Amino acid sequence: MFTTRRYQHCAACGERVEYRMPSDDNRERAVCTVCQQIHYENPTNVVGTLPLADDGRVLLCRRAIEPRRGFWTLPAGFMELGETVAEGALRETQEEAGARVELQGLLSMINVVRAGQVHLFYRARLLDLDFAPGPESLEVALFHFSEIPWDDLAFKTVRATLEHQRAGRPELLITDV
Amino acid sequence: MFTTRRYQHCAACGERVEYRMPSDDNRERAVCTVCQQIHYENPTNVVGTLPLADDGRVLLCRRAIEPRRGFWTLPAGFMELGETVAEGALRETQEEAGARVELQGLLSMINVVRAGQVHLFYRARLLDLDFAPGPESLEVALFHFSEIPWDDLAFKTVRATLEHQRAGRPELLITDV
Ligand SMILES: [Zn+2]
Ligand SMILES: [Zn+2]
Repeated sequence: MFTTRRYQHCAACGERVEYRMPSDDNRERAVCTVCQQIHYENPTNVVGTLPLADDGRVLLCRRAIEPRRGFWTLPAGFMELGETVAEGALRETQEEAGARVELQGLLSMINVVRAGQVHLFYRARLLDLDFAPGPESLEVALFHFSEIPWDDLAFKTVRATLEHQRAGRPELLITDV
Repeated sequence: MFTTRRYQHCAACGERVEYRMPSDDNRERAVCTVCQQIHYENPTNVVGTLPLADDGRVLLCRRAIEPRRGFWTLPAGFMELGETVAEGALRETQEEAGARVELQGLLSMINVVRAGQVHLFYRARLLDLDFAPGPESLEVALFHFSEIPWDDLAFKTVRATLEHQRAGRPELLITDV
């Protein structure tokens, strides 16, 4: 069974945890050996956008950080507490590409089970062309779909989302990579 | 800013954490005062189904546990590591209602920002009527939409998802509660 087993110590009291099945549960959890607190580990959401200019070009960012430094991606990152999926997607688009967009509907929900992640991309319309790379991007550029650097994309979820948009299918893409 | 601040101690070494902004970040995180490890806290997904019998009735569970013990809900629970959204929705439907369903498409994605959650419900078709309450349910029953106990529903996300299905709208419901 997939597990990250991130806990060696209790986040509440600092004593050792052990991985065991609580009596009312059906899988192993990090349980504190002293205060008995249970620490759950659950999948996280990565949220982003596929930003389109009015001429049909798509905005991509070349990554300045690992993993996949130097490869092209859609603006996306971990959803944070205190925001909605949509707000997180807008924030990441601003942070990574300096771009202002208008969200137009959910485009893809892609399970990345081995990473414990769900990737959620909105289709978005670029409100202007005044974008600029943020600290996590080397460059930001617009590509016609025929010009996308398909062999230099950072992640399978980015490829699947771009291919879904290129195919022009209106329905939400739900898949696993 | 919303934060759960779940960490008092480091999950890696057990020493004290402090909440401060790492140099390459823009929000406060739990940072270990000794080993410097950063512990991130992110929203979690609650996944479930709206199970429909072939006669149009919807399956609801009456909760045996807090919060909202005694109130009616759709089968749903926290998505686990090692599964997709769809697999989690099927598992919760089995665990809480003893029901076997076929998934038919994503019905709702509802942000519950104050709880740090995203609720995701699939529309589903009951494969048979051999359901039975699991340990977290007092009873499981089928309701025509006109008979749903609207005043005794457990959660706003359940109400919004049921109302969306009743309205017969084909598109994904995306909203916040
Ligand atoms: Zn403890
Ligand atoms: Zn530490």
